[in-house]
Amino acid sequence: MSPQEESWDTVGIFVFPGFEPLDAYGPMELFGSMIREGLRKVKRIVFVAETAGPVPSCFGPSTVAEYGLDDCPPLDVLVISGGIGTRILMHNTRVVDWLRSQILDHDVRHVLSVCTGAALLAATGLLDGKPATTNKELFTYIRQLFPAVQWQGTARWISQGKVVTASGVTAGMDAALSIIEGTFGAEVAERVARDVEYIGDWRQASNDPFAHHSSSDDGEGAG
Amino acid sequence: MSPQEESWDTVGIFVFPGFEPLDAYGPMELFGSMIREGLRKVKRIVFVAETAGPVPSCFGPSTVAEYGLDDCPPLDVLVISGGIGTRILMHNTRVVDWLRSQILDHDVRHVLSVCTGAALLAATGLLDGKPATTNKELFTYIRQLFPAVQWQGTARWISQGKVVTASGVTAGMDAALSIIEGTFGAEVAERVARDVEYIGDWRQASNDPFAHHSSSDDGEGAG
Repeated sequence: MSPQEESWDTVGIFVFPGFEPLDAYGPMELFGSMIREGLRKVKRIVFVAETAGPVPSCFGPSTVAEYGLDDCPPLDVLVISGGIGTRILMHNTRVVDWLRSQILDHDVRHVLSVCTGAALLAATGLLDGKPATTNKELFTYIRQLFPAVQWQGTARWISQGKVVTASGVTAGMDAALSIIEGTFGAEVAERVARDVEYIGDWRQASNDPFAHHSSSDDGEGAG
Repeated sequence: MSPQEESWDTVGIFVFPGFEPLDAYGPMELFGSMIREGLRKVKRIVFVAETAGPVPSCFGPSTVAEYGLDDCPPLDVLVISGGIGTRILMHNTRVVDWLRSQILDHDVRHVLSVCTGAALLAATGLLDGKPATTNKELFTYIRQLFPAVQWQGTARWISQGKVVTASGVTAGMDAALSIIEGTFGAEVAERVARDVEYIGDWRQASNDPFAHHSSSDDGEGAG
């Protein structure tokens, strides 16, 4: 299928109590922009949680997840937000098993973790031995939890097959645009960026002004 | 009060059916970052709508507004999102009267419109004769609706007293950081940007790669 013909039926944004809002809504806006009539590259965006219903973010306000894991429709793209809630969720075998099944599902084309969403992916074991990145202020914390992953300290995002791991919060927007450009071409990515007047850098995954160099974290950064 | 001592009790994000998600969540994340323990410059973030409850965004998924206009607590900062829903809402006198009262309220320190949220502000009449900006792809549409405002075609955002009008969608993030820097100083703004790994330009309001030059809009841009 040519980039002109390709489209995605459903983009799913996975959230949980204590999710970091922009981890979810940055990529959501960029993928959502492709719903507009000028592009029509995406049919719908849905929020998914362990259980459908209102899901409180780390700052309090809730987003309504239309779907739970049991009734989640087939996804073309899955975005996994991070946030303080990952500390608990990475031990939830039901959620981790579901995430693993999404990565292994041949119909799922792209899985994008943002910030500490990478910890949820790492908990599946499917990142073991592979390069990945995450929030730079919590880098050492995450690396110690999942030492079998080849964590990269200088990376805005890392593509590894269908899995893309983005660094902290707003890195998810650049990573989302890189997925859009890789799938639909530079013109569509430019149009999306212009649509939301986004000044970012989605062509250089290694352009990381927040590269992790210190050997310890203060544990206070965005989740 | 010195920048070190200043803090905000409540930041309110105003949304409505058909709001553009990142118009709300971009500034929400940046102001929200100041809740974290390292800064403690903001006590809470709330979503406000005409009526409390779930509010569907332009892409479908809903955010829960904890407050309606009737029970909205006093706000230190008010963010007004844009989106396709502004087309209807700008004729809603109850909402427009409430927005006017927020601008005139001496306790409200900053009012930030993002994207076509500027149309809601313009409907109050309080922008008449003053410089303002809005979404560049819908610039002519908005300018024709509110000809008494001095709309600026080249501006990432414009500060006019307590009112800041931002251009399209992601311009709201730079405008929010400029408000943070103006209130709390450069160090706090840098810390917030680092916390969410944001690569933006919140020091040059006139740095506008999406400046409006054409005389007609296609009406399809982000709302």
